[in-house]
Amino acid sequence: MHFVDSRVALRHALSVAEQAVGLTDPNPRVGCVILAADGRQLGAGHTQPAGQAHAEVMALRDAQAQGHDVRGATAIVTLEPCSHYGRTPPCCDALIKAGIARVVVAVQDPNPQVAGQGIARLRAAGIAVDLADADLADAARELNIGFFSRMQRGQPFVRLKSAVSLDGRTALPDGRSQWITGDAARADGHAWRKRAGAVLTGIGTVLADDPRLDVRLVPTARQPLRLVLDPRGRMPPAARILQPPGETRVIGAGRANLPALLAELGGQGINELHVEAGPTLSGAFLDAGLVDELLIYQAPLLIGHGRPLAALQPLTGLDQAQRWRLVEATPVGPDLRLRLRPT
Amino acid sequence: MHFVDSRVALRHALSVAEQAVGLTDPNPRVGCVILAADGRQLGAGHTQPAGQAHAEVMALRDAQAQGHDVRGATAIVTLEPCSHYGRTPPCCDALIKAGIARVVVAVQDPNPQVAGQGIARLRAAGIAVDLADADLADAARELNIGFFSRMQRGQPFVRLKSAVSLDGRTALPDGRSQWITGDAARADGHAWRKRAGAVLTGIGTVLADDPRLDVRLVPTARQPLRLVLDPRGRMPPAARILQPPGETRVIGAGRANLPALLAELGGQGINELHVEAGPTLSGAFLDAGLVDELLIYQAPLLIGHGRPLAALQPLTGLDQAQRWRLVEATPVGPDLRLRLRPT
Repeated sequence: MHFVDSRVALRHALSVAEQAVGLTDPNPRVGCVILAADGRQLGAGHTQPAGQAHAEVMALRDAQAQGHDVRGATAIVTLEPCSHYGRTPPCCDALIKAGIARVVVAVQDPNPQVAGQGIARLRAAGIAVDLADADLADAARELNIGFFSRMQRGQPFVRLKSAVSLDGRTALPDGRSQWITGDAARADGHAWRKRAGAVLTGIGTVLADDPRLDVRLVPTARQPLRLVLDPRGRMPPAARILQPPGETRVIGAGRANLPALLAELGGQGINELHVEAGPTLSGAFLDAGLVDELLIYQAPLLIGHGRPLAALQPLTGLDQAQRWRLVEATPVGPDLRLRLRPT
Repeated sequence: MHFVDSRVALRHALSVAEQAVGLTDPNPRVGCVILAADGRQLGAGHTQPAGQAHAEVMALRDAQAQGHDVRGATAIVTLEPCSHYGRTPPCCDALIKAGIARVVVAVQDPNPQVAGQGIARLRAAGIAVDLADADLADAARELNIGFFSRMQRGQPFVRLKSAVSLDGRTALPDGRSQWITGDAARADGHAWRKRAGAVLTGIGTVLADDPRLDVRLVPTARQPLRLVLDPRGRMPPAARILQPPGETRVIGAGRANLPALLAELGGQGINELHVEAGPTLSGAFLDAGLVDELLIYQAPLLIGHGRPLAALQPLTGLDQAQRWRLVEATPVGPDLRLRLRPT
């Protein structure tokens, strides 16, 4: 490949980074592309599972394996190279040692152990460092939105997923919900689960639907941790959510304090929390203002009588309703995927 | 203007025809563009209010007013030229008399008084007639979907409009609904009302909201007829729906028989019926399978407790739910316009 425009090269680096989804948690997904002065790609790579090589090292190794000389080359990275010794040596040092002349950084690392120090370290070594345009910086931040949330707020990015009818029903009055949405929407939902460090549900959903809540409709190298809020110890030992693949943690101690739970999960390296629950738990998250993104699969049918998306506190006026901003409305098979964020 | 491609010219003719929305009911909206052999536009026009000139005659007059000779020219029309004497002489005759050499017809007229006879008459006069590609024929049919419905089924095309929250609520439990959707969605809703020959609601909505149900947020040359189902004679004389502009008809005789009502409205030249009603009447239309299109403005907020889009008969299984096909999902301001048709 050959890139004459560093914007195009950065978009390619983002697509390389995307391949690290479901692989690197709690570490961010990072891509790196190394270009010769004429724009020829010398190497590319993305972050490996935590404790293994980062994107820059993978890209340098890729260039080396192809017999390319990277001295004087440009490295395009989707996140600021690290400057600290974690489980691996700093990537900055690898880039400096390899003789890279210029680095294009999509966005600064929010990790307080990096936070501009990587860029400073590269510049101190005589490497030219350019920052990406704002739109590409945003795209790079989006790819690691959970990592940014955990670094900046100490808690995961909370994505609440639901599958509803046009009239906002998730199930018939007796709880039957198989299937409101189609195959494509269900597979797409698994792709979003895969992005998460943990999937959270309530014991009511386990008792009613006996879901597995694992990732099986899309390939993945790892399973998210499954969490069940079960304050009264009602988990059936034979529940499918307790079966492999993946780990499951039952949170039973007293009534759940959701902010404290989020802080705890942040401390445990959960970047994105995927909430896939019934109306009670969904309502608790929404009423507490703890949802960072709604992921709604809307099926093209009307159910009439049925279960709501969320059991919310009554409003005294429409001006009290939380307003959301529509991020996307994308057809997925016959259904519609809506993503919304708080305004 | 200059057209080397008759597909492009036909799209232009469709945009000319679009200008006849809100003007020609019960007649269809038709556009005509006359092109010289080299593709130069000689004239264009669209149908006028019922009883006045049709598109072909308007385009011929436009060419004449500009001093153009149309002998040997091509006429692009969005609907088969009429061959019968209605309130105006047949357009076929005007095209023949003018010396048009070729006619491109987007779609055959469903009017049983035309239905291919226009094309036959042109061909008999030695004019070459070509039919448009299927996609453009579909677009031409869509523009007059109500006219096609009335001609082919004897009843209007029924469009049911609703404004709902993400969780399918149209109002708070006490009926307050101002405003779930934003200014842009409300103006867009008026643009759809404008397409309709009649707007229908129930007395419950009149008593609760005192709506005007006229077209005022977009310019229009005429107001749709307003219809109120009021079986028990509860219409307040001071109701705003009874005020100008536009006419209002209160339908009071006994319990409404919706299929009979639709047949009656078809007989009265209503092409598109815009139903903008509360859950009871909306539910009655839906349960009876009489809705041809759902027009839903979905606002990005969650209401929780509130009124449903429609009071539907309970389902005994999800497989019983009527499935719809999503035609479009288009952002309108902060809201989302969804259009769906029966599968």
